[in-house]
Amino acid sequence: LGKELAAPEVAQALDKKLSQLPSNQRTSFLVPRNGDLPGTDPSLAPGDEECTYLVGNSLGLQPARTKQLVIEELDKWAHLGVNGHFTGNRPWMPIDENVIEQSAALVGATKSEVAIMNSLTMNLHLLFVSFYRPDGKRKKIMYEASAFGSDYFVFESQARIHGLDPKEVLLPVQARAGEELLRTEDVVKAIEAAGDSLATVCFGTVQYYTGQYFDVAAITRATHKVGATALWDCAHAAGNVDLKLHDWEVDGACWCNYKYLNSGPGAIGGFFVHSKHHGKGLPLMAGWWGQKQATRFNMEHNWDPEADAGAWRLSNPPVLQTVALLASLEVFARTSMAELRGKSMLLTAYLEFCLSDLFGADLSVITPAEPAARGCQLSLKFSEAEACLATFGALEKRGIVVDHRKPNVIRVAPAPLYNSFRDVQHFCTAFREALNEAAEPAKKRAKA
Amino acid sequence: LGKELAAPEVAQALDKKLSQLPSNQRTSFLVPRNGDLPGTDPSLAPGDEECTYLVGNSLGLQPARTKQLVIEELDKWAHLGVNGHFTGNRPWMPIDENVIEQSAALVGATKSEVAIMNSLTMNLHLLFVSFYRPDGKRKKIMYEASAFGSDYFVFESQARIHGLDPKEVLLPVQARAGEELLRTEDVVKAIEAAGDSLATVCFGTVQYYTGQYFDVAAITRATHKVGATALWDCAHAAGNVDLKLHDWEVDGACWCNYKYLNSGPGAIGGFFVHSKHHGKGLPLMAGWWGQKQATRFNMEHNWDPEADAGAWRLSNPPVLQTVALLASLEVFARTSMAELRGKSMLLTAYLEFCLSDLFGADLSVITPAEPAARGCQLSLKFSEAEACLATFGALEKRGIVVDHRKPNVIRVAPAPLYNSFRDVQHFCTAFREALNEAAEPAKKRAKA
Ligand SMILES: Cc1ncc(COP(=O)(O)O)c(C=O)c1O
Ligand SMILES: Cc1ncc(COP(=O)(O)O)c(C=O)c1O
Repeated sequence: LGKELAAPEVAQALDKKLSQLPSNQRTSFLVPRNGDLPGTDPSLAPGDEECTYLVGNSLGLQPARTKQLVIEELDKWAHLGVNGHFTGNRPWMPIDENVIEQSAALVGATKSEVAIMNSLTMNLHLLFVSFYRPDGKRKKIMYEASAFGSDYFVFESQARIHGLDPKEVLLPVQARAGEELLRTEDVVKAIEAAGDSLATVCFGTVQYYTGQYFDVAAITRATHKVGATALWDCAHAAGNVDLKLHDWEVDGACWCNYKYLNSGPGAIGGFFVHSKHHGKGLPLMAGWWGQKQATRFNMEHNWDPEADAGAWRLSNPPVLQTVALLASLEVFARTSMAELRGKSMLLTAYLEFCLSDLFGADLSVITPAEPAARGCQLSLKFSEAEACLATFGALEKRGIVVDHRKPNVIRVAPAPLYNSFRDVQHFCTAFREALNEAAEPAKKRAKA
Repeated sequence: LGKELAAPEVAQALDKKLSQLPSNQRTSFLVPRNGDLPGTDPSLAPGDEECTYLVGNSLGLQPARTKQLVIEELDKWAHLGVNGHFTGNRPWMPIDENVIEQSAALVGATKSEVAIMNSLTMNLHLLFVSFYRPDGKRKKIMYEASAFGSDYFVFESQARIHGLDPKEVLLPVQARAGEELLRTEDVVKAIEAAGDSLATVCFGTVQYYTGQYFDVAAITRATHKVGATALWDCAHAAGNVDLKLHDWEVDGACWCNYKYLNSGPGAIGGFFVHSKHHGKGLPLMAGWWGQKQATRFNMEHNWDPEADAGAWRLSNPPVLQTVALLASLEVFARTSMAELRGKSMLLTAYLEFCLSDLFGADLSVITPAEPAARGCQLSLKFSEAEACLATFGALEKRGIVVDHRKPNVIRVAPAPLYNSFRDVQHFCTAFREALNEAAEPAKKRAKA
């Protein structure tokens, strides 16, 4: 069945159905050509054709307008010098105002709950400064046992900064023996068991490795029940799934804008603090940009912060990074996360269907099967690391850009904003070829 | 005498003397035209002529190569997608390696002591995390009473984060009654008096308002004598004066790259940790980018940091910001801070000479008179705020870009890298006109 579904005509028909919807923003992006990519084989991937880019979970594609917006700011700098701070199109002083509203819409926040600043790991630390306040017995940090390395380093170093022994403080939640995914019920039970020893729970909203989309609402609710704070790293969730950070009562969250948000390598970060925490004098690392605009430049030593998430800002905003984000948000503004999520569920289901006959002992999907419990990404797990790497190499030759995660996982992420059924179909066809090629290296070598 | 020195022929002759030196990099920068600036009067400042840009202390000019380098990275992203991290010219993963060595040279550091990351205020907080470790009696933070607002907010919020009352912890050093500048001897005495109650001393290396260049070596030495740590905010010093952060045994320092370092609005920040503190396990806010490159992507929960200042990095580097800095450093690489400092002392002395007959009760220079105790900036103080603002407006009409600081100071900063004696001469001529115009508003209005 998979093979038949992956016929070009099926993909074409599905794309046609979607082509008129605003969620179809493929043409708003620059797609690399096969010939420009390292490792492509021109006999397998015509050099002047677009590659099959399924790695928006790592680095999103460049919006067609990015270059123009960046050049506009460079020209403003060249022509106006320091006057660009207060004059011209998009004055720099409040330039982040151009990206707050749309960012908030994407993560299910109100405008006042979002700041655009710094980078992901930095912002996660800043959330810990405000929301991880170990006090007596209440000092534990709960997180996924397979958390992204950088997030783990945040947890561990935060414990150290407070003079605590990480071994006593860190509380990883493990999947059940033989399972890859965490069950919500197990997480909730772990939270209840930790009880008033628990200070903070921090998970990746969509798990980078498995693609599991956690039940943020349930886990946050359980966290609050024991009196702890809930922080969410939305790196793999923002622009991928329809977050409702405000409604879910998440205390704080952060995300990066270089994955599904398409704002380029090392893009500016996103930051969320729930409105219930605004104006409460939470400890934070203060800077002049958190000060009210009206008094910000008075240089008085009188901390008078913005009444919202803006209070967490520290420095004058990085202009090029901010407009790179703007270029992407302009595209998102033509559709909505709700619509994109709908399309995304179809795309990923199609990907799963088209490969379904291949799944068994040698190859499996570790991502949850329920669409509500995953984003766009499927993580394909090989029984053998070598076969995984060889398949990855064979895909590369065919102009398929996916992502290999040590030791034996290939992550495939059809980004809702620009990927098509055709992309998925291309991937599936190439994947079959790649599996064969990887299985028959000797035969291949003889042919060559 | 001032007037005569400010004759165009004198400036021209001086510029000619310098024109062959590598410190003359004027043509490597894009200078705004009068006609593009808000507030210029075409009858006083011909629209197609370059303006007189003397505000590199606020936002440096754009290097001519910046746009090309930024576009190269955008094109790489468009053509290579995620592959840009490891392939192509200047792979993104280690892209900061392109800006470390030259940055280190500019601040008198070894390569291993510098990281390029985040923003200024953020980096100052990160230094406090590592170097401000209040312990029992030792908890005070000493700083200039007139510190830049953002720096003050760092001091105050750091006290709060440690659960301390800012009133008990903050120790501002005041200038003597009737004086604008801090005397080194007074600072040293204050440090000695604070003794073992002192945890950290943090000053702006070149004071943003007065332009005073503190005796970093002497203050740092005194700080260490009482067992405290010395942190320096080099915002107005980097690219302006010849810093020797390593030799002076400064513990930690940070700077911004948008002033004398010409890397654009909201440029990436600079960060210094002295080599004597490397590999000592100081508390820090950890992230995967502080991990050794060889193990960074293994996702193991095993903190194994770089053995140098790189350990303080948190996130993958912002590519556009990094190459914007690179474009400027390429220009600096053609000369040296020692050479630039020599030229700068002459330029600023010339500025002072050319105005000297104007100084008196109504107008004075608050910047130190000794060249060694100031950078390129002179701060002109008016007895009346109104006259100051009117003069500033009259300068603007004449295409002179300087900076007005409430209530009654105009800061004039001939940047050593691109400003000329001609710029200074233009300023001085326009300043005399502006003073007259400001003094005779009624007459002016009648004429118009
Ligand atoms: C002395 C000093 N400290 C701090 C800052 C704040 O810089 P940022 O907004 O880059 O954090 C500035 C900015 O001009 C400054 O001059
Ligand atoms: C889940 C997660 N956390 C943290 C990071 C680190 O991001 P940054 O380098 O932007 O701090 C990443 C990067 O991919 C990530 O996916």
